[in-house]
Amino acid sequence: MGNKRYSDSMQVNGLIQFDDWHDLYASRMETMRSSAVRDLFAAASRSDIISLSGGMPDIRNLPLETVSKVAADAVLKEGVAGLQYGSTTGREQTKEVVCRLMKDFDIEVVPSDVTITSGGQQALDLLGKIFISKDDLIITEGPTYLGALQAFSAYEPNIITIPFDEEGMLTHLLEEKLAELVAKSPHGKHGVKFLYTVPTFQNPGGVTMSLERRKHLLELSHKYKVLIIEDDPYGRLRFSGTPVPTLRSMDKNVVYLGTVSKVFAPGLRTGWVIAPRPILAKLNLAKQGADLCGSSLNQVIVEHYFNDTDWQGELDKMIALYTKRRDAMLEALEDYFPAEATWTHPEGGLFVWVTLPEYVDTPQLLSVALDKGVTFVPGDGCYPGGSGLGRNALRIAFCYEEPKNIREALRRLGEVIEERMELYRAFIDAGAL
Amino acid sequence: MGNKRYSDSMQVNGLIQFDDWHDLYASRMETMRSSAVRDLFAAASRSDIISLSGGMPDIRNLPLETVSKVAADAVLKEGVAGLQYGSTTGREQTKEVVCRLMKDFDIEVVPSDVTITSGGQQALDLLGKIFISKDDLIITEGPTYLGALQAFSAYEPNIITIPFDEEGMLTHLLEEKLAELVAKSPHGKHGVKFLYTVPTFQNPGGVTMSLERRKHLLELSHKYKVLIIEDDPYGRLRFSGTPVPTLRSMDKNVVYLGTVSKVFAPGLRTGWVIAPRPILAKLNLAKQGADLCGSSLNQVIVEHYFNDTDWQGELDKMIALYTKRRDAMLEALEDYFPAEATWTHPEGGLFVWVTLPEYVDTPQLLSVALDKGVTFVPGDGCYPGGSGLGRNALRIAFCYEEPKNIREALRRLGEVIEERMELYRAFIDAGAL
Repeated sequence: MGNKRYSDSMQVNGLIQFDDWHDLYASRMETMRSSAVRDLFAAASRSDIISLSGGMPDIRNLPLETVSKVAADAVLKEGVAGLQYGSTTGREQTKEVVCRLMKDFDIEVVPSDVTITSGGQQALDLLGKIFISKDDLIITEGPTYLGALQAFSAYEPNIITIPFDEEGMLTHLLEEKLAELVAKSPHGKHGVKFLYTVPTFQNPGGVTMSLERRKHLLELSHKYKVLIIEDDPYGRLRFSGTPVPTLRSMDKNVVYLGTVSKVFAPGLRTGWVIAPRPILAKLNLAKQGADLCGSSLNQVIVEHYFNDTDWQGELDKMIALYTKRRDAMLEALEDYFPAEATWTHPEGGLFVWVTLPEYVDTPQLLSVALDKGVTFVPGDGCYPGGSGLGRNALRIAFCYEEPKNIREALRRLGEVIEERMELYRAFIDAGAL
Repeated sequence: MGNKRYSDSMQVNGLIQFDDWHDLYASRMETMRSSAVRDLFAAASRSDIISLSGGMPDIRNLPLETVSKVAADAVLKEGVAGLQYGSTTGREQTKEVVCRLMKDFDIEVVPSDVTITSGGQQALDLLGKIFISKDDLIITEGPTYLGALQAFSAYEPNIITIPFDEEGMLTHLLEEKLAELVAKSPHGKHGVKFLYTVPTFQNPGGVTMSLERRKHLLELSHKYKVLIIEDDPYGRLRFSGTPVPTLRSMDKNVVYLGTVSKVFAPGLRTGWVIAPRPILAKLNLAKQGADLCGSSLNQVIVEHYFNDTDWQGELDKMIALYTKRRDAMLEALEDYFPAEATWTHPEGGLFVWVTLPEYVDTPQLLSVALDKGVTFVPGDGCYPGGSGLGRNALRIAFCYEEPKNIREALRRLGEVIEERMELYRAFIDAGAL
């Protein structure tokens, strides 16, 4: 299968193994990148590492006895239905639970407005699949959820990013961009397939889009006919401030994604899509080929958990935990990070986004940090590949470590950054930069 | 978003709903078809219907008490690990179980040769994703597994089908086809990305590729450098005859797919891929974007089931059940189907493939059969869309109904077919056809 090239080789057990199949892969594989977070997964589970990289919820306090009973009951009460193939779109009873959960966000839907997916991630993959042909335009926040970039990239779009501030996406820049696209197009069409946003406690920014910006975004979506995808995994993780309405509660044409990963257990891989019925019909069609159906047993467990246990009480405990950790993180940033650094101040979610001076390279910084026993996500992974953006930024998660560990990790990270910056300051002073 | 067209509408609650988003979909959606089997799912669960359509294993005799305890233990013993995000490629312990199971098929692998997928179906989707660019060539048996056609079609390949007889794929026709492709190509390359086969108890054929044909297929794969994907969901469901070695046991370059769906429970969505490491690395990369990771809890349950219970005993009971049902089906076909019909004689698996005279149209037949309370899969769904093939054939499954129901269903189906054929015979006699 063609000549062997070194670039088509990989290391297996320290030996180079050539990829005899390198000329068989689809063109999409040329740009598909591994997620830094996934690569850090192994490191993050080492006991000597303080992980600020993953978005893993801290479920160590979940009441295992209760969940164990829920799982046992799920098999006994639902019997074979929990172990058999199910409907592609998900169990009716699970959708009913979702409809009830959605009422808390002023989203009024019935089961046929909902499809259950394998976590929120599968929803992203399916939306990419049904909307994106090679070279189509899509818009995301910049930086954005790296898993969304991975999911969409498989379908080879061109991704336009719109920056945010503490009030969320800078919608006036979106407006300029859309106007520019229309003006440049010979047919007066912007050609954007969809705009993907995490408006509440954004990943990686931690910021929440203000009500004014939300209104402006929806205005633009009407004016320019742009489909909005609202990804909302963190909406229930608010520590302070006032809730802002979901985009879907303000506009029925918004596609809304939810998940139990951050409010119950990610290992059950249960998420959902709410979408206008014609879009949902296409998504369900794509889902048939992707997995036939999701796990019936997991859905039954989710039903029992949200119907029969004090899930809100468990979540409140988790929120209390995260609040302390966020506070510890923001305090440690003040104490240990250089004056040149800026960062976001999230009212919920899992992440803080830190911006360093342009000349600091966070991907390079990571290996030094690892030596010091700390992991984080270099910012470039939160931008489309090849954009060159985000190399002076980093995402740090406060969800998984104890406050004293967070403080210690940021102390070490502050040192590493300080060392780098001193070097650069010397160069600058010497006029070399 | 453009003008509304009637073809872009759908019925919702009896009202026509126009698809305002019709001009946003990716080109792949133009050819994506719904699976007849999935569409029949609702009908199949009606109590007045005898279903010969689905490939649902009959797990009604699974020991629910045991499985319930397995599920409860899974949570208690593995604790949070079973509920947290896991590795994209699957749990090490689950892969170890797979490696042990594979020894029964003379496949010697270690965990890093394995990726756990969400059923066998996700493996098909991921293989399509990493290998197929639009208009690439792939080869399958014809007819073939309709879920594979759905999975691959999302990536818009051109699909070449090779017929089979009772000895499996007609490999001399494959040889002719490859030679023809090479001869026609300006670069002397056949351009085939992979060949997908279900060599053992084929879906929908029920036939098993003989050892001679397997050797010939692997010879051709070497000579022409064609990657082989062996899908083996039914390999353990043998009722009679002698086992034939798996392709993967004969050649390490074969990509092998397995699943617990037909030997334990499909609702746990646990399958696996065994592939050369460079291919597996690409597949794992694609899997990150598709679902981050599979369900940890389901994997733990699978581990416990295969480590701690008499799963082989349960499977033997299931096989005894299916043997009687296959026998009932073959007998009823003799008794009730017309002399012009031919069908396969499977030594295992779930399906029989029936071929009727050219002039019988099984998609049309289905609605009549539904009126008589019987479902089956019209043969055209098992060929690539637009091929025009299989309209005189049907797939009937013997796995899910009691022998007396199978007999009754085939009696009714025989009548429906006979009525059609009488009509056609009259036309033929009158010289009208």
